[in-house]
Amino acid sequence: MDRNLALLKVKGQLTEHRYTHTIGVMETAIVLANRYGADEKKAELAAIFHDYAKFRPKEEMKQIIVDERMDDRLLQFNSELWHAPVGAFLVQKEVQINDAEILNAIRYHTSGRVGMTLLEKIIYLADYIEPGRHFPGVEEVRDLADKSLEQALIKSIQNTILFLLKKDQLVFPDTVHTYNDLMINRRID
Amino acid sequence: MDRNLALLKVKGQLTEHRYTHTIGVMETAIVLANRYGADEKKAELAAIFHDYAKFRPKEEMKQIIVDERMDDRLLQFNSELWHAPVGAFLVQKEVQINDAEILNAIRYHTSGRVGMTLLEKIIYLADYIEPGRHFPGVEEVRDLADKSLEQALIKSIQNTILFLLKKDQLVFPDTVHTYNDLMINRRID
Repeated sequence: MDRNLALLKVKGQLTEHRYTHTIGVMETAIVLANRYGADEKKAELAAIFHDYAKFRPKEEMKQIIVDERMDDRLLQFNSELWHAPVGAFLVQKEVQINDAEILNAIRYHTSGRVGMTLLEKIIYLADYIEPGRHFPGVEEVRDLADKSLEQALIKSIQNTILFLLKKDQLVFPDTVHTYNDLMINRRID
Repeated sequence: MDRNLALLKVKGQLTEHRYTHTIGVMETAIVLANRYGADEKKAELAAIFHDYAKFRPKEEMKQIIVDERMDDRLLQFNSELWHAPVGAFLVQKEVQINDAEILNAIRYHTSGRVGMTLLEKIIYLADYIEPGRHFPGVEEVRDLADKSLEQALIKSIQNTILFLLKKDQLVFPDTVHTYNDLMINRRID
């Protein structure tokens, strides 16, 4: 799918602020794809559609998680997690994107998962460091992303878990599994 | 078992420093047991024997985990976690303590677990706040322990996970499950 058509399709789903964020994720994902040898076109599409379901009503998302027999542990955790798997489902259903790699990059862009693919790592990280992001620690992750995808990803997940704990929020276990998996498999670059 | 006999049995297993720690855990556990309505005698015994296996050689602990078909995910994580389940096993085998509540309080005193019993919570917390402990945040947990066992436990587990992440250590998933479980079930005292 052509970039402009993809952007047109996602624009109606998002607020202006979130659309600007999406452009930032797209541009960052393309840079990372070229830097780390991923398919640039897939990175572009996954980035454009990563937040497709972000503004769906919670009840609709909950219903889809139940009806489609997605991981229903999600329902016990922050609803911020829901738009990722629901987004993968809706992008396939409503936009007719059937590429499993792209759909998985959308599906796991918030929780991560054990055994993340290169494309999944790129979308997760691009979402974290795109230029519109401003929070403590983001600059350190941007710097790491210049040198090592793994190190940047580990730091971003550490930051995310620290943030949740400090805010007395639950921590979705898959995010910790992802962190442990990356730590066990990391290469010293 | 009489306190003095129990202390005699554990003393040979520990360094002097760790024996002093054990006395601190015992005294703290008795205070907490009285405050929160647990069996004082069980708290005393569980505290005395909680670090029974602390100085067993790693190879021996690993062998016991394998031979006794304990959770072998432990072997991928910090060996600091091993002495708790191995301790429960050895305390039963070598000291002939057969009380399941006491053994579980020893077994889960480092990792925690979903659905911790009152006694397990008391031993976990006593180990964290006994008077010999000096590290950032311990005073806050001591203060919380005067008012709410749950709040103190949550804070101590948050601190533990934060510490591990900041040190680039793996995080044993059961500790996160324990944290989430306590957060979901906490009462506002």
